[in-house]
Amino acid sequence: MRLATIRINGEAHFGAATDQGFIDLGVRLGGRCADIPDLLRQDLLNEAAALCTNTQPDLPLDELEYLPVIANRNARIFAVGWAYQEHQTETGKEAPEHPALFDKHPQALVGHGQPLIKPAISDSYDFEGEVAVVIGKAGRHIAAKDAVDHIAGYTIMMDGSLRAWQRHSLTAGKNFDAGSACGPWLVTRDEIPDPRQMVLTTRLNGTQMQHSSFANMVWDLGFLIEYISTFTELQPGDIISTGTPSGVGSRRTPPVFLKAGDRLEVEVSGIGVLGNTIIDEPPRPAPRSGS
Amino acid sequence: MRLATIRINGEAHFGAATDQGFIDLGVRLGGRCADIPDLLRQDLLNEAAALCTNTQPDLPLDELEYLPVIANRNARIFAVGWAYQEHQTETGKEAPEHPALFDKHPQALVGHGQPLIKPAISDSYDFEGEVAVVIGKAGRHIAAKDAVDHIAGYTIMMDGSLRAWQRHSLTAGKNFDAGSACGPWLVTRDEIPDPRQMVLTTRLNGTQMQHSSFANMVWDLGFLIEYISTFTELQPGDIISTGTPSGVGSRRTPPVFLKAGDRLEVEVSGIGVLGNTIIDEPPRPAPRSGS
Repeated sequence: MRLATIRINGEAHFGAATDQGFIDLGVRLGGRCADIPDLLRQDLLNEAAALCTNTQPDLPLDELEYLPVIANRNARIFAVGWAYQEHQTETGKEAPEHPALFDKHPQALVGHGQPLIKPAISDSYDFEGEVAVVIGKAGRHIAAKDAVDHIAGYTIMMDGSLRAWQRHSLTAGKNFDAGSACGPWLVTRDEIPDPRQMVLTTRLNGTQMQHSSFANMVWDLGFLIEYISTFTELQPGDIISTGTPSGVGSRRTPPVFLKAGDRLEVEVSGIGVLGNTIIDEPPRPAPRSGS
Repeated sequence: MRLATIRINGEAHFGAATDQGFIDLGVRLGGRCADIPDLLRQDLLNEAAALCTNTQPDLPLDELEYLPVIANRNARIFAVGWAYQEHQTETGKEAPEHPALFDKHPQALVGHGQPLIKPAISDSYDFEGEVAVVIGKAGRHIAAKDAVDHIAGYTIMMDGSLRAWQRHSLTAGKNFDAGSACGPWLVTRDEIPDPRQMVLTTRLNGTQMQHSSFANMVWDLGFLIEYISTFTELQPGDIISTGTPSGVGSRRTPPVFLKAGDRLEVEVSGIGVLGNTIIDEPPRPAPRSGS
């Protein structure tokens, strides 16, 4: 099943994105369930799948206004830095002994098809295509061998990075409002029996910029979940974004940075395509005189 | 006014902590307001203050079960590293050109008087007493000169730090569940006309470990708010924890780390005392045989 969060008349709805269209699961479940993390917490995936069988969809997919897959601002996004050997090489970083975690903020994310905002403050706006794991079941001190039970499924992250500000801190450089994207949907783990076979491709204006097998990601997914759950209880809807392969714009000669009008697509086989167009940050209103 | 979030019969309540006792503002406002961020968002501070005049309190202060001042898990906590010259010296860090931000997670925090949990995984559990600023009014691209309007007030943070894991990443080392504390209350900014006159003192089992004037914090508060709001819209209830002075346990000879039974107090003049006792992480249940 593919689960998406969308906006209808200004309100967030969640449901299944089938080949025939979008099925509004919040409505079909009679309001028993508020959002995707709630669906996962209540363990209603099977019931949701049954509701989608032989069901007329509520909306065509091409009319959807996507929000980030997990639109809740209390979900956490654990991002992993330098998790592909090839990206370690291009950035001159040594292989870390432990996962190099940083935080993405929900406010930084837009959904599939929504504009990504290039900040006015710097032209060093770069892309990072990533496979992201969505947690489906809460847990602390999860053993790596049990971790798969805690995975709801997989989605795609565009970890937008303002390189000039990333040198100040990862918190600042990775969290410009609406500078990153997540979507279009979460594909439940039953549909991806071997995640290592996924292939990630990032295209900028149709040109391939990143292309790597998820098998090249250096950490075992079970280990990542064990590691993070050592310090905190993971919750349904929490996301682990597993790092980017080589090919980012800032490491090219000459560097390639994102600018207004650019079309960015991150495709992951078995999931789909997360596509967004870059716009400039709107000009700020001039300060009022005398204020 | 001093605003606190407490637990009554398992539910979060918020209100004013007066010298006479706790006044439940959620109840007194007739349910119009859910929590402290909501009170700030609705700009109801004056109305709340009026409700507290000549009012019999609902609970004595010494019976309160404090939660973190801001108990909402969608509030963000921007922490500033190496923000006192004396702490830069003891850690051998150069003065950063820009604020060195990292994220504290709401899950990491307990309230005043609640046990702090020393993780089983490492004995390198250290304290950092900090002054924290609570945002009262939303804003993006806030100019430093206008920033004071966006400050609701001040509280105290104990930025618990597992030094061994902090070397992996700040996300991991600073966010062990229930390893940090925030409280006991937020003192509104009208009561602290010159924040630079605040003095922070950290005591471990009654012995003074940190003692510094907030005037020694190297960043201007207005600049910090301008800096953070360059990349994201600050929201009521967001917290900026402004870094710790010298005297942390790991930089002492021999090092001093927190252990079960220790009593930690962070006092800030004009705010109060945040006091917590350390307990060991409860042992994990043994794995079931055959699982």
